[in-house]
Amino acid sequence: MKKVIKNGTVVTATDTYQADILIENGTIHQIGHNLPSNDAEVIDATGKFVFPGGIDPHTHLDMPFGGTVTKDDFETGTIAAAFGGTTTVIDFCLTNKGEPLKNSIKVWHDKSKEKAVIDYSFHLMIGEINDQVLEELPTIMKEEGITSFKVFMAYKNVFQADDETLFRTLLAAKEHGALVMVHAENGDVIDFLTKKALELNQTDPIYHALTRPPEVEGEATGRAATLTGLADSQLYVVHVSCAEAARKIAEARSKGIDIWGETCPQYLVLDQSYLEKPNFEGAKYVWSPPLREKWNQDVLWNALKTGELQTIGSDQCSFDFDGQKSLGKGDFSKIPNGGPIIEDRLSILFSEGVKKGRISLNQFVDITSTKVAKLFGLYPKKGTIAVGTDADIVIFDPNVERTISAKTHHMAVDYNAFEGMEVIGEPVSVLSRGEFVIRDKAFIGTIGGGKYIKRARYGKTLETENNSVPI
Amino acid sequence: MKKVIKNGTVVTATDTYQADILIENGTIHQIGHNLPSNDAEVIDATGKFVFPGGIDPHTHLDMPFGGTVTKDDFETGTIAAAFGGTTTVIDFCLTNKGEPLKNSIKVWHDKSKEKAVIDYSFHLMIGEINDQVLEELPTIMKEEGITSFKVFMAYKNVFQADDETLFRTLLAAKEHGALVMVHAENGDVIDFLTKKALELNQTDPIYHALTRPPEVEGEATGRAATLTGLADSQLYVVHVSCAEAARKIAEARSKGIDIWGETCPQYLVLDQSYLEKPNFEGAKYVWSPPLREKWNQDVLWNALKTGELQTIGSDQCSFDFDGQKSLGKGDFSKIPNGGPIIEDRLSILFSEGVKKGRISLNQFVDITSTKVAKLFGLYPKKGTIAVGTDADIVIFDPNVERTISAKTHHMAVDYNAFEGMEVIGEPVSVLSRGEFVIRDKAFIGTIGGGKYIKRARYGKTLETENNSVPI
Amino acid sequence: MKKVIKNGTVVTATDTYQADILIENGTIHQIGHNLPSNDAEVIDATGKFVFPGGIDPHTHLDMPFGGTVTKDDFETGTIAAAFGGTTTVIDFCLTNKGEPLKNSIKVWHDKSKEKAVIDYSFHLMIGEINDQVLEELPTIMKEEGITSFKVFMAYKNVFQADDETLFRTLLAAKEHGALVMVHAENGDVIDFLTKKALELNQTDPIYHALTRPPEVEGEATGRAATLTGLADSQLYVVHVSCAEAARKIAEARSKGIDIWGETCPQYLVLDQSYLEKPNFEGAKYVWSPPLREKWNQDVLWNALKTGELQTIGSDQCSFDFDGQKSLGKGDFSKIPNGGPIIEDRLSILFSEGVKKGRISLNQFVDITSTKVAKLFGLYPKKGTIAVGTDADIVIFDPNVERTISAKTHHMAVDYNAFEGMEVIGEPVSVLSRGEFVIRDKAFIGTIGGGKYIKRARYGKTLETENNSVPI
Amino acid sequence: MKKVIKNGTVVTATDTYQADILIENGTIHQIGHNLPSNDAEVIDATGKFVFPGGIDPHTHLDMPFGGTVTKDDFETGTIAAAFGGTTTVIDFCLTNKGEPLKNSIKVWHDKSKEKAVIDYSFHLMIGEINDQVLEELPTIMKEEGITSFKVFMAYKNVFQADDETLFRTLLAAKEHGALVMVHAENGDVIDFLTKKALELNQTDPIYHALTRPPEVEGEATGRAATLTGLADSQLYVVHVSCAEAARKIAEARSKGIDIWGETCPQYLVLDQSYLEKPNFEGAKYVWSPPLREKWNQDVLWNALKTGELQTIGSDQCSFDFDGQKSLGKGDFSKIPNGGPIIEDRLSILFSEGVKKGRISLNQFVDITSTKVAKLFGLYPKKGTIAVGTDADIVIFDPNVERTISAKTHHMAVDYNAFEGMEVIGEPVSVLSRGEFVIRDKAFIGTIGGGKYIKRARYGKTLETENNSVPI
Repeated sequence: MKKVIKNGTVVTATDTYQADILIENGTIHQIGHNLPSNDAEVIDATGKFVFPGGIDPHTHLDMPFGGTVTKDDFETGTIAAAFGGTTTVIDFCLTNKGEPLKNSIKVWHDKSKEKAVIDYSFHLMIGEINDQVLEELPTIMKEEGITSFKVFMAYKNVFQADDETLFRTLLAAKEHGALVMVHAENGDVIDFLTKKALELNQTDPIYHALTRPPEVEGEATGRAATLTGLADSQLYVVHVSCAEAARKIAEARSKGIDIWGETCPQYLVLDQSYLEKPNFEGAKYVWSPPLREKWNQDVLWNALKTGELQTIGSDQCSFDFDGQKSLGKGDFSKIPNGGPIIEDRLSILFSEGVKKGRISLNQFVDITSTKVAKLFGLYPKKGTIAVGTDADIVIFDPNVERTISAKTHHMAVDYNAFEGMEVIGEPVSVLSRGEFVIRDKAFIGTIGGGKYIKRARYGKTLETENNSVPI
Repeated sequence: MKKVIKNGTVVTATDTYQADILIENGTIHQIGHNLPSNDAEVIDATGKFVFPGGIDPHTHLDMPFGGTVTKDDFETGTIAAAFGGTTTVIDFCLTNKGEPLKNSIKVWHDKSKEKAVIDYSFHLMIGEINDQVLEELPTIMKEEGITSFKVFMAYKNVFQADDETLFRTLLAAKEHGALVMVHAENGDVIDFLTKKALELNQTDPIYHALTRPPEVEGEATGRAATLTGLADSQLYVVHVSCAEAARKIAEARSKGIDIWGETCPQYLVLDQSYLEKPNFEGAKYVWSPPLREKWNQDVLWNALKTGELQTIGSDQCSFDFDGQKSLGKGDFSKIPNGGPIIEDRLSILFSEGVKKGRISLNQFVDITSTKVAKLFGLYPKKGTIAVGTDADIVIFDPNVERTISAKTHHMAVDYNAFEGMEVIGEPVSVLSRGEFVIRDKAFIGTIGGGKYIKRARYGKTLETENNSVPI
Repeated sequence: MKKVIKNGTVVTATDTYQADILIENGTIHQIGHNLPSNDAEVIDATGKFVFPGGIDPHTHLDMPFGGTVTKDDFETGTIAAAFGGTTTVIDFCLTNKGEPLKNSIKVWHDKSKEKAVIDYSFHLMIGEINDQVLEELPTIMKEEGITSFKVFMAYKNVFQADDETLFRTLLAAKEHGALVMVHAENGDVIDFLTKKALELNQTDPIYHALTRPPEVEGEATGRAATLTGLADSQLYVVHVSCAEAARKIAEARSKGIDIWGETCPQYLVLDQSYLEKPNFEGAKYVWSPPLREKWNQDVLWNALKTGELQTIGSDQCSFDFDGQKSLGKGDFSKIPNGGPIIEDRLSILFSEGVKKGRISLNQFVDITSTKVAKLFGLYPKKGTIAVGTDADIVIFDPNVERTISAKTHHMAVDYNAFEGMEVIGEPVSVLSRGEFVIRDKAFIGTIGGGKYIKRARYGKTLETENNSVPI
Repeated sequence: MKKVIKNGTVVTATDTYQADILIENGTIHQIGHNLPSNDAEVIDATGKFVFPGGIDPHTHLDMPFGGTVTKDDFETGTIAAAFGGTTTVIDFCLTNKGEPLKNSIKVWHDKSKEKAVIDYSFHLMIGEINDQVLEELPTIMKEEGITSFKVFMAYKNVFQADDETLFRTLLAAKEHGALVMVHAENGDVIDFLTKKALELNQTDPIYHALTRPPEVEGEATGRAATLTGLADSQLYVVHVSCAEAARKIAEARSKGIDIWGETCPQYLVLDQSYLEKPNFEGAKYVWSPPLREKWNQDVLWNALKTGELQTIGSDQCSFDFDGQKSLGKGDFSKIPNGGPIIEDRLSILFSEGVKKGRISLNQFVDITSTKVAKLFGLYPKKGTIAVGTDADIVIFDPNVERTISAKTHHMAVDYNAFEGMEVIGEPVSVLSRGEFVIRDKAFIGTIGGGKYIKRARYGKTLETENNSVPI
């Protein structure tokens, strides 16, 4: 059945205008004044913004970590995402050394396919490079549409890859048209500082931050950028938390290196002092990289405004405070890293960014959706509101005020890292391929209704391969 | 009468998609598949790109300079612009010290109103700041819709303003919501080097470049950026020609200073060696800032790609080689500065930029139109293709090959700086507010048909004032 | 008569060693163990450092400023200097536009020749460049041995020169072998901010600092460096107060520009908060450039340590608090700029620098004496302890503790900017050309006993011209 | 017996003056005019410079590498060094993982003690850090006076240490007062690029340079600097070859990181094009890091002049062209790295540096001797000419012209990398602790006459520990 969204203010990464949107067969058919709606369901969007659905490029759903598993799986996680205005997530598929990559991908399909309520795709972790991996990669890119590979420069003896692995991954990505992602922290230094802190009985959550100072992130970011330049390849730096790292990305871009940077809501609004909360509450704020001194927030906001950083991911990786985070009592290194943010990514960026004049409304759309779609081969099916695209649409009330709280959120965890934060703006209704997932702030979607999306190669659109720098 | 552009590929600063466009009353009414065209004129755009009309932020039409007057006036200049796909120009209104600004504006209205074939607006030169000027500025902004002021840091004893004037202009701009533009070269140094060169009988055109080295542009750019930061104001640096200046802009942006940079086609494809052409032919390539060593081109292209520079202006300022440029025979300092580029701005950027993979198709639109519209208060009337905007539209053939030449160009001058250059892509038809100016490569517009456009204040859209950072 | 300094620890810019020093005819004749002392006066220096006498490259003695005259003249000023371990001062000779430079020099000779108790020389202010000035400069360099010229980029409508004057001074300096000195602050901006502050009735001393922020110093420093590079000349930036300016100097040096930087004790140990002292006491701390936020001190100390800055001057320019500084009550712009520091330059650098491990003992000598001598053509007569040099010597007790105070200082002013500061180390005896000026902390010198010193050209030693880069 | 050097021009890192030098018991007893010489041997130095003996901080004598052994051992190597004006070498003692460090040191003592003709000391390679190594280090520092440790970031699977090892070495150095040295190149990238080049049959010597581009040196240098800052330790970067690495050192110094840089004669006068010489002759120029594009030379010279780099080592590591370098025919990776430079280090720096005005005469002494002595704990016994120091003295003729050639050099290898280079200046006589090693250009020293020197801790002098930043 057709739908017409009436009287809303359509917002894209470039434009803001009043128009109706006619949806047919799950895609956008027409945009204009006075569109005929006689045979269509009419959705009134008066006074609302009509955004393309958010795309979260960085989630860890149903992921094992440090002897436990993230609390949110593809069901609770994607429901919460939808409530927050996100209509696509790209989750990280972990792999195991020595094992075929396709096995790991199968595991991830099994985790997601009967649960996700919105569309989803996978990034693939690369832990080692050898002949078998090199042979498997192009097949996976083609068959699975997985066109982004993640390399960890930290988590020594767990995920950490050496520089040769990173360099060869960059070369393979160049050859086949993939985008390499890095977790950029110097794992060797962190590992040693951690051991030393524990020896000195420095076990509280704050030591998580103190043992991974901004210099180790800046260093690793610069190193990854240098290797990218040498490989003439492309790189996406996840969860940039500090000025040092943002600076390295900007410098590399100035030199012509093809590098992109993502930050996260937590780095924009929280800071290192949260880790010092008493009664182990600091554990709720344990991310890697850690929260930084408050002045870094201005640098990150400005980087988003100028385009030195381009996207925002949630790095959703949720663990209960009680029973999971608490594993690290008496030893900060055992606190599971990460937090629940998938639901409030858009609200926080809108409220703190757009409403406070730090970024424009159009940049908001670009950062939360369009640029992500373009970088990761989802465009133009996803990431914008234009004739022919999937009708992944958020109807957003820009004036409603609410308070973020674990009491009202839809994630499965027992706390919210932004507890008590007042935000302005909230999704009212959310459509995925033209169907309501959220309607009037209520979930009416289908468990398992989300589709796995095969993505285009880096720098390509889904339909064609004729656009060499679409981003 | 209605018009429907059928089957074209619509391109905005963000999106690229197949759709029809329905035009009513000079604006875009609907965009979509299968738009009804029964009562409309149908324009077939199969195989063509449909761009928003180009906006040239930097022209000097009918301008007196060095005892002569630019060859192209608002008639020939705007006709040539239209042939090249430009549907709006913003021309520089020169002023005279000690005289009311409104007098100068009247002169510029007189030059343009019965000649322009496309829409136009004015920037206003500020040569001095005093109580009278300060009083006049807000009135002019309101009544004339002139919201950008130009300050020259070069041309000593002619246009050059001192730092106090620049600083006070920045403060006034901050107060009233205008954008300050600078010609950033250190005029004191240039003036002295010029005198010294002439004393040494170094009179050939190449000495124009050698007496204004990149350091003087870098220095002045950095100085203007510093003053902008101190004034907490906003700055647009015109005709950035070299790495030194681009670097200063990028650094200032990283620090949070609100600064923007424009480059020009000549700096992207020509270089300093052109000034050494024999038989005084080097005079054709005398711009200020001068053409630079060739390696700077890569820096400028990369700056456009990364967003360190944001726009491209023509700096159209045309003089005949024979009779005007020739005034400088035997004394390079008497060569009128500037050249004819208004016609080929889009073609060159498309052919050298998009076709060669240096920028994306969407960036091309942003750089030549959208960003200009947003920076200078023309948006959303101008600068994009969206429901409700003026139907300023270019139907562009991306595959046609042609050779730029004075024999075929439509500017009034007797040479073309890009003579013999092969380009791919050319506008076929151009509409201004829904009416053809160019149809099938022939001019069918109306002399004097262009309208003067009052512009919104900096950071504001024409309709509303609710969007604080729309750019 | 011969003198032998026995058992001291001789310290040069390079070396630290135990040895006796034999002085004959005012110069150092031998250095060694067991020097024969039968026919010589023996001075015991056991437990003391034996330094080359300090050279203060930056003093304003008996100088008219803002309708008053500095309190210390060449008598009180040089006596105080000698107490502090300084044996040579280079004072700034002000000039008047339109008047022959030699007239001004005569005035300065008249001020000094019957008063100075230690040796002295002059820098020459350049306020304008014209044919007469250009003709006079080489004569003055030759006849007066004045080989350093000062240009002011601040003090609009008083001392301030435009960029052309600075550039031409740099070119003339290049041609004749002089060193150009700049006061680097953007006077246009300062002048306007000052007027504006006064309009807003912001009249307290703190507004002196707030109307000349670090950006204006950084900007002017960078501009002067650029002009120096273009002129292929040499530059010495006086009184560097902040990170911004230090950074510009370091960057220029990295590019191969021949630029040097001086800081002052006040910028190393005092900070902007002093200007907020109540009861107008902030006026005591009014220097230009102003005191900065405290974190800049670390940057300046590190720059001295790494050699990014090379010297320390006092910028001695003393005015009584009562009767002179008080001219600025109710209008900070009328507070005479400057303070009394000539006496404690060495003590502060020794106590805060060497004793606290920020610089080495040898760097202390280099910064306070040797590098100054080399830069300004006094070397090797002055600036070191080596066979053949003038016996300008300080016997310094490195362990004595004392408190700086106006009650005990020897300057003519009624306050001390470092009142109450505890320092370790103090000169005990001071010799000028082998004769005691200070003996056992008592002045025993001769009023008018100081000699005017003609200096060598830049990059040259006094005796020879064969050493092209002696610095 | 006493010796008096008469009528020479004594040059230290600071001073240049005419004086006699009286030597007693192998040390300098007096310096002065008219020193009594009745009971002393008189050495006439009229028209000569009298320098402190050169100290080469970077030699590899009698070192196994890639299945062969460097041609020069401690006998031929130190004889050649002495001919070139070097009176002390610090050689690298290689170690083996899993073996006590003291065993390796014993091997190095055995190689040297009966052969060296000048004084010598050892740096110690650290290949791994574990409890045993950590326990052994302080003992070795105390008993052997070895106070500098070398870590390799390149030579994967041979010498290369990981970041944890480097970081822990820095922490241990901080704790015990040692200076860490790094070979800064990213070995992972080099290793992979090398394999890949060989796969592509790119086997000529030039591929040695192309597989270790400047970026890998810049990256590793920046990484090592970051780790040094985090450890609050001290670092010395050996053989800096390019602008990228020099820049990283300068930036780190500006931030207050305690880091020093050494370059080598080959990087100052040779360039990458030498590796392209036909008939495998390029193999003579295979160093790691490799020779760079010629423009880097200006950057390195300027860095020496400004103090961004501080010393010059030879990296002496000599292999015959015939029989050793030739191992790499058909596979550049098998060419033994290094070359014969120990003999001409001073001549090249004097001729190309001082004579061409790039550095001053005093800087020459600082770079080749004094700074090395201070950094590596040899000062004040070595590194200067001052009362009380070892009489390690070079009498240097600054005017003689000669041609460097394998036919006349004293190294044991069959070629000279600087063959045919014309230099001005040459040592005439060289004394070690007051005894002639070279007299009138003839070797008259004693095989095995050199003494092993125990060195002071970092930042300390040999006699005292009271000088916290003597450098």
